[in-house]
Amino acid sequence: MSSGIERIAVVGGGLIGSSMARLFVENGLKVTIYEPDKAARGRLDQTMRGWALGSRVPAIHAELEAALCGAQFVLEAAPERLPLKQALLKEMEIFLAKDVVIATATSSLLVSDMQVGMVHPNRLVAAHPFNPPHLIPLIEVAGSESTSEEALATTYGLFKAIGRRPVRLKREAIGHIANRLTSALYQEAVHIVSSGIASVADVDDAVRYGPGIRWAVMGPHMLYHLGAGEGGYAKYLKHLGPTQEARWASLGKPRLDDSTRQMLIDGVNQEAAGRDIEQLCADRDQGLLAILQALAALNNEPLNEGIQ
Amino acid sequence: MSSGIERIAVVGGGLIGSSMARLFVENGLKVTIYEPDKAARGRLDQTMRGWALGSRVPAIHAELEAALCGAQFVLEAAPERLPLKQALLKEMEIFLAKDVVIATATSSLLVSDMQVGMVHPNRLVAAHPFNPPHLIPLIEVAGSESTSEEALATTYGLFKAIGRRPVRLKREAIGHIANRLTSALYQEAVHIVSSGIASVADVDDAVRYGPGIRWAVMGPHMLYHLGAGEGGYAKYLKHLGPTQEARWASLGKPRLDDSTRQMLIDGVNQEAAGRDIEQLCADRDQGLLAILQALAALNNEPLNEGIQ
Repeated sequence: MSSGIERIAVVGGGLIGSSMARLFVENGLKVTIYEPDKAARGRLDQTMRGWALGSRVPAIHAELEAALCGAQFVLEAAPERLPLKQALLKEMEIFLAKDVVIATATSSLLVSDMQVGMVHPNRLVAAHPFNPPHLIPLIEVAGSESTSEEALATTYGLFKAIGRRPVRLKREAIGHIANRLTSALYQEAVHIVSSGIASVADVDDAVRYGPGIRWAVMGPHMLYHLGAGEGGYAKYLKHLGPTQEARWASLGKPRLDDSTRQMLIDGVNQEAAGRDIEQLCADRDQGLLAILQALAALNNEPLNEGIQ
Repeated sequence: MSSGIERIAVVGGGLIGSSMARLFVENGLKVTIYEPDKAARGRLDQTMRGWALGSRVPAIHAELEAALCGAQFVLEAAPERLPLKQALLKEMEIFLAKDVVIATATSSLLVSDMQVGMVHPNRLVAAHPFNPPHLIPLIEVAGSESTSEEALATTYGLFKAIGRRPVRLKREAIGHIANRLTSALYQEAVHIVSSGIASVADVDDAVRYGPGIRWAVMGPHMLYHLGAGEGGYAKYLKHLGPTQEARWASLGKPRLDDSTRQMLIDGVNQEAAGRDIEQLCADRDQGLLAILQALAALNNEPLNEGIQ
């Protein structure tokens, strides 16, 4: 599948920007990266050497104009500060033809707020990846009321074409879909620890050896559709809907105050059992890759579809 | 690893009871099942023929006394109605030596409520499996203040010995750990649909292609420990704790009223795209098995540890 896009500029060379750049390059796209910070450029260069991209390695630019030159699509992955992003968008528009879509990887800002001051706000779309972005297939595509259908369709089509799993929101929302769900779960994960029901390690184990395995296969609605036998979701909601509502009423409202934070930090250190962040990230990514490979093999799909 | 237990009685031959019986048999234990309903016994017999257990197939009894005879451990998986469970527990105690532990698979009742009227309440423990129980490794072990440490340790040890992943709660709580977390996520999954942010299918896709894959590898606390680079959970909580609290405040409070239910049912039917419940369950279980095999291979663990 081809999206027609061949040249992409990535604005911001941090964790998200560099991961997305890698993803684009691995799918046959030509990529440039804008990173104004000298130290950050050094780190980025170092990181990319480890990827063995050969001659396809993206060009890193310290000047926005040079990075945007010839780009048919822009991924903005600058720090999550609204004034910074607004200023950057205004500057980007100087160097871009008006039909070039800008997708922002923002996780917590609204497209409508970022569009303030843009000359062509209709081109701005949120395209939110999930960490680590080169492994997790989800891309959440969302626009404000000012975003054009074309910009949304172009963004969706591009990510679909490179083997990602884009989903399209009907309207913008803080945290899009996945981070809203993650936050809802996390609120209770904090409450269970802070109210003395279970330890941090046991909460984490309850997820990874329990519902987590199911959520890697199906989402919450479909799982309940299968949770009531032949009667499906209608039967589930009729018989167990009241149990859900009762449980909702029993969920906690914790605060992340100093003592709660300390309890969480102590708990996670105990769970880590001496493994440092680097080791734990490697463990995580190995597990993710094993699952992605297993599911791809099951569904007879390539792990990473090329864009051609 | 051996727990010392060789004979187990399963009380209730429905979905959970039969799955747990299968698990025990496959791990070398001798199992009897009590199922008072004639039609249910017929279905159970049919189900068990499909498992090819040969001579190890559990004996199904219509009389409680016969099913409990010689049992060293009892798993109670009767319907989730408190008066029924209370009456059943009283009757079970007539036929059991006082040191035989009774583990209840209850998902939504409290051990302390079920202990009312028991002669030896200290033997009652919750041992909650997750659906489908023969695949999902989690067993949540919880007791009330009247439950003995011995009963908790015996139950934990038994499930550990047959290759499950038991976690022990520090105190009882409605929904234990995993269903509390699942409910919290589900509440927002309903809200996102009912407030028009996204469709049922897109919510489900956002989970399975996004955070779901991570939750099959690590729990929510550990994932945030890894979400802030070298600074770990302390840095995450300091810098992104306020974002979490802001998102918590923005989560929805939906009701499962008639129009919301219809919206959810229509959405899941669209997502199912003609696949019936049987097909979808087969798809789910195939996916779960692929993931469990991949993670077992990665960790050099057998898929299902024998009890010997």
